[in-house]
Amino acid sequence: MSGNTFGELFRVTTFGESHGPGLGVIIDGVPAGVKIDEALIQRDLDRRRPGQSKVSTMRKEPDRVEILSGVFEGVSTGTSLAMVIRNTDQRSQDYGRLAELFRPGHADLGFFKKYGVRDYRGGGRSSGRETSMRVAAGAVAKMVLATMGVSVRACSMMIGGVYAETVDWSVVEENIVRSPDLAAAEKMVAAIRAAQADRDSVGGIICCEAHGVPAGWGEPVFDKLDALLAHAILSIGGIKGIEIGAGFEAPKKRGSENNDSILPSGFASNHAGGILGGISNGDVITFRAAMKPTSSIAKKQHTIDKEGNATEIEVLGRHDPCLVPRAVPVVEAMTALVLADLALRNRAARI
Amino acid sequence: MSGNTFGELFRVTTFGESHGPGLGVIIDGVPAGVKIDEALIQRDLDRRRPGQSKVSTMRKEPDRVEILSGVFEGVSTGTSLAMVIRNTDQRSQDYGRLAELFRPGHADLGFFKKYGVRDYRGGGRSSGRETSMRVAAGAVAKMVLATMGVSVRACSMMIGGVYAETVDWSVVEENIVRSPDLAAAEKMVAAIRAAQADRDSVGGIICCEAHGVPAGWGEPVFDKLDALLAHAILSIGGIKGIEIGAGFEAPKKRGSENNDSILPSGFASNHAGGILGGISNGDVITFRAAMKPTSSIAKKQHTIDKEGNATEIEVLGRHDPCLVPRAVPVVEAMTALVLADLALRNRAARI
Amino acid sequence: MSGNTFGELFRVTTFGESHGPGLGVIIDGVPAGVKIDEALIQRDLDRRRPGQSKVSTMRKEPDRVEILSGVFEGVSTGTSLAMVIRNTDQRSQDYGRLAELFRPGHADLGFFKKYGVRDYRGGGRSSGRETSMRVAAGAVAKMVLATMGVSVRACSMMIGGVYAETVDWSVVEENIVRSPDLAAAEKMVAAIRAAQADRDSVGGIICCEAHGVPAGWGEPVFDKLDALLAHAILSIGGIKGIEIGAGFEAPKKRGSENNDSILPSGFASNHAGGILGGISNGDVITFRAAMKPTSSIAKKQHTIDKEGNATEIEVLGRHDPCLVPRAVPVVEAMTALVLADLALRNRAARI
Amino acid sequence: MSGNTFGELFRVTTFGESHGPGLGVIIDGVPAGVKIDEALIQRDLDRRRPGQSKVSTMRKEPDRVEILSGVFEGVSTGTSLAMVIRNTDQRSQDYGRLAELFRPGHADLGFFKKYGVRDYRGGGRSSGRETSMRVAAGAVAKMVLATMGVSVRACSMMIGGVYAETVDWSVVEENIVRSPDLAAAEKMVAAIRAAQADRDSVGGIICCEAHGVPAGWGEPVFDKLDALLAHAILSIGGIKGIEIGAGFEAPKKRGSENNDSILPSGFASNHAGGILGGISNGDVITFRAAMKPTSSIAKKQHTIDKEGNATEIEVLGRHDPCLVPRAVPVVEAMTALVLADLALRNRAARI
Repeated sequence: MSGNTFGELFRVTTFGESHGPGLGVIIDGVPAGVKIDEALIQRDLDRRRPGQSKVSTMRKEPDRVEILSGVFEGVSTGTSLAMVIRNTDQRSQDYGRLAELFRPGHADLGFFKKYGVRDYRGGGRSSGRETSMRVAAGAVAKMVLATMGVSVRACSMMIGGVYAETVDWSVVEENIVRSPDLAAAEKMVAAIRAAQADRDSVGGIICCEAHGVPAGWGEPVFDKLDALLAHAILSIGGIKGIEIGAGFEAPKKRGSENNDSILPSGFASNHAGGILGGISNGDVITFRAAMKPTSSIAKKQHTIDKEGNATEIEVLGRHDPCLVPRAVPVVEAMTALVLADLALRNRAARI
Repeated sequence: MSGNTFGELFRVTTFGESHGPGLGVIIDGVPAGVKIDEALIQRDLDRRRPGQSKVSTMRKEPDRVEILSGVFEGVSTGTSLAMVIRNTDQRSQDYGRLAELFRPGHADLGFFKKYGVRDYRGGGRSSGRETSMRVAAGAVAKMVLATMGVSVRACSMMIGGVYAETVDWSVVEENIVRSPDLAAAEKMVAAIRAAQADRDSVGGIICCEAHGVPAGWGEPVFDKLDALLAHAILSIGGIKGIEIGAGFEAPKKRGSENNDSILPSGFASNHAGGILGGISNGDVITFRAAMKPTSSIAKKQHTIDKEGNATEIEVLGRHDPCLVPRAVPVVEAMTALVLADLALRNRAARI
Repeated sequence: MSGNTFGELFRVTTFGESHGPGLGVIIDGVPAGVKIDEALIQRDLDRRRPGQSKVSTMRKEPDRVEILSGVFEGVSTGTSLAMVIRNTDQRSQDYGRLAELFRPGHADLGFFKKYGVRDYRGGGRSSGRETSMRVAAGAVAKMVLATMGVSVRACSMMIGGVYAETVDWSVVEENIVRSPDLAAAEKMVAAIRAAQADRDSVGGIICCEAHGVPAGWGEPVFDKLDALLAHAILSIGGIKGIEIGAGFEAPKKRGSENNDSILPSGFASNHAGGILGGISNGDVITFRAAMKPTSSIAKKQHTIDKEGNATEIEVLGRHDPCLVPRAVPVVEAMTALVLADLALRNRAARI
Repeated sequence: MSGNTFGELFRVTTFGESHGPGLGVIIDGVPAGVKIDEALIQRDLDRRRPGQSKVSTMRKEPDRVEILSGVFEGVSTGTSLAMVIRNTDQRSQDYGRLAELFRPGHADLGFFKKYGVRDYRGGGRSSGRETSMRVAAGAVAKMVLATMGVSVRACSMMIGGVYAETVDWSVVEENIVRSPDLAAAEKMVAAIRAAQADRDSVGGIICCEAHGVPAGWGEPVFDKLDALLAHAILSIGGIKGIEIGAGFEAPKKRGSENNDSILPSGFASNHAGGILGGISNGDVITFRAAMKPTSSIAKKQHTIDKEGNATEIEVLGRHDPCLVPRAVPVVEAMTALVLADLALRNRAARI
């Protein structure tokens, strides 16, 4: 109810603040009999963790995952599966001086109005650090999906105004910005560096695909597959928009152009992004998400203090000048959570 | 679980197919003591109903609402509030001939794969007719919100490639396409008519605002205000994308441009769309949604039949050449449902 | 959240007051492909309805069910299944004079304190009439369970201090008190009549069994099969206790007596009532529920009015001197709802 | 959905097996601003932990709680509150030899049929050890309730056939069986010892009270206060029945005896156990729960192995000959969880 849980049958509940002792997740609903490969969980956590490249924050958090329950002899038991990671490099003192100010672009003000408390330690629960446990849970969801032949992948289609012009999925994990276009990747890195040099930041667009989803996943009214994806993706901090398939281009077309003709061999196009009426149609699921530029910037900005007085703020600390590359595995994770949940829900669709 | 319910504390469950005896909704969680004005519910239903103007379908459905419970002497009692409308103009025969084909752009195929049954009566549960009960429930949500000084409004920002260039909310309900720009409205009507003449259809972009939302609504992790809005809006048939505030423009800006400076008098801009870290910041909530062109078109399209053989289809019936004007109250309704739910949830945020 | 919904995958939401226009239910989660026999729904409604025998209230409510959605050509479609019945014999005037008093044994006082409104029309939402829609939904659950070879039955084991001494299930529907012992049935009728003559009422104990439940239904921690049964049964007005298998006799035994030995042919006894550790063990599910004597009695009682002043009350109206026979199908219905829900949930237990 | 979560607004999710690395709980919905006293949590854990007295198991589990999130400077922040305890004294080897047999009275068989896996390490998720995290969460719920003047207490009313004849709450924590009657306590200890000497076990009856609950808590239909209590209490392993107020005595009375007369000073009696129509009436909440004798006994019993062959079993290990004294804080905890949840839900009852 307070929104730390996501999913119905594959249900994930997380906890943890950026500056507390640690973070964790309980997955309730992992079916028994799934091989759980801890190395794959760690691999996705490593793709998300800070300090992984020269364009990400210098904070060093090893993010070592520990499985506390739900797995016996390498296989899920059907009971709740819990994982935790410990915080190690917190440096609360970096944030202490901001304790009296509200940072532009951050949840500080809303948080304070909502709860009446000001946890000034680097964002607390609204820190991006919270997404680590989504990634851990998403890695387990990917293992469930793998048993059904379903896979999920994402990449950075645009960063700082630089667009990928070709899409070669094989190079995505070969470059530090997770671009599907190596030539564009270099320009993206340059754009990030330029912003950083100006004490500023950039955003980008993430593209995600799910392959192997059979026709029939998704519920026809409120829990449409695209509605759940939108919920999942917009719940990631900094994401300001999502479009499925043709998305915002669809309204510019006529019905006869936008409809995907159905041939005996499959769909002639995929403007639908693999989803019709909220239900997967058997084609590849595709969507794009817009991520805003990092809110924490060293550049001077106008703000107010807790008493409402005008002042200026420089958010120093160790912040990513661009969060998009690290958000790629988070987008994958949330997509996997939605699909694993709907896959299990679909088992009750027919007698 | 099967996704006919939306919301946690203000919880809406709907039923009904386009060609069954009727449709209805149960709202569980209307607080006791809210004045329920049946005329306002009917007014929003009339804004959504078919046959309301020369650019909408000619189907005549009066959509008369009847309240069956939860209201006593004009005031909500705190118990579940049910409403139904009867179907009157069904003409199943219009659809019978399509019973063996899958319509491009429709959920037919996914539905059939999911349930193993083919309810060929005009879309059944995935018919746009289902949204009537969202509108009825949304009207009640608006009454709850009104007690808190919160209001919601939406309009057609683009139809068939024609954009509103000015925004005058006072004219929205004065023109049949619900444009905030009367000059653009005429061109929008022309675009719809031209498509119709070509046995084709157009889509559009809907803009929505919520005024009066105090800072602090929304839950910080999975149930962010924007995540729930995205879920709600993408659950409307035909919507392919949503963007909050600056949306897909945000990634093109630097952090220093995109952050909204905080002044003692309020925010200097509203790129955030009134939401930061998933929590309302006290500014106006704003978002846009992309609606695809109507899938049901009379133009000939390629498709397959239930046996998978190639064939052609002309979806005749009485379909809207553009659904955007009728979707405006649906977007408002879903927004109101999210806000009423979060308003009630917020009551448990502090001891 | 406001508690008008029961179940997770087979999810029932009800509405309706005793003196409003009607009552209804939406079942979200009926799997597609189940044959829906309206006559069986009506049969269970008839077993619950008022005026069915000389020991029940004389109110005449035909309780004709109408299915509004979710069924096409006699088979469930997988979409939400709604049913309504209209109220016909309301006579609100019978209750008007009690509008200023709180009836002993009734929810009036708590309702008023909770909602701040006083719906004096015969109990409103807390009327026993609310259970009619549980029975309708339970009948559908029975049809789902029948496809799995599972059946549910209940009877009156004690009424007004008279116990059934033999158990012959074949006679239960042959006598108006639903006793499994015809000799006891006559004495039960006599006990009810004697109480009625004294302007008083009696209660009883209902026994329920489920046959054919395979081992493995129920969730191991909070949603144990017995926990959900207890929730379901105690949610019926007037039920004050439940015991599973040996129940309150179990604590009087030693472990060696109470444990059911496991033989190759099955369990040597059934003190567990077919449930161990919250999971069905393959044996017959058995439990008993205690129903208090009807609260509405014509005998003079002490009470207070809305201002808190002492006064006396005679609850006249047309009330059942014993509700146990009419509660038998309600207990069956709630049991069927729990089992159908757990059956569907069990489909996600393994990969 | 898999049932490791309890509650709606004060929502508890647990994980952990008896022989894994540890156990834990996430509470989602602790309102911000509640003073969290770790010592009180530890105190309740100590009341539940093994090895606390000569009548409990000799296993030594210190059950040291660690809070990982949701508390800042001793006060709840409104975000999810997580706690873990590490397992330290597991001795899996004690159980290894039972790996091929199903223990009578245990969930082994159902678990195996449900999940297809056999976690033979002492019960795994269905171990009583799972209740430790309920107790930790319940302690937090008690702190929330304390801010509203509500308190919960429980005691052993019967053990091994010995009933408390007087009720002096002040002595409950002064004797190792948590009896409210010191004279009975001695006989209860003797009964336990006698059973233990016979390689056998005993059960008992726990009584629980909640004081200070105002009229109006509980939802009128499916989430009646007594229904949620029944769900909560029957979800504790080994509990086979519950009765509210007069419980199974109620059906033996007439309405005029069982109804609690309402006087200006309050109710003249409390047969209702403080609950009418599922809603608290302002009187003390009272109920009793029946706990079966411990299933794990050293005495030889008939059982089968995984292949279904007849054999005998002696469950040696270090088991409590009576679990009732250690279950007392678990009953309190579950009661506190229900009340905290309903207290928060009640905030949305009126506009």
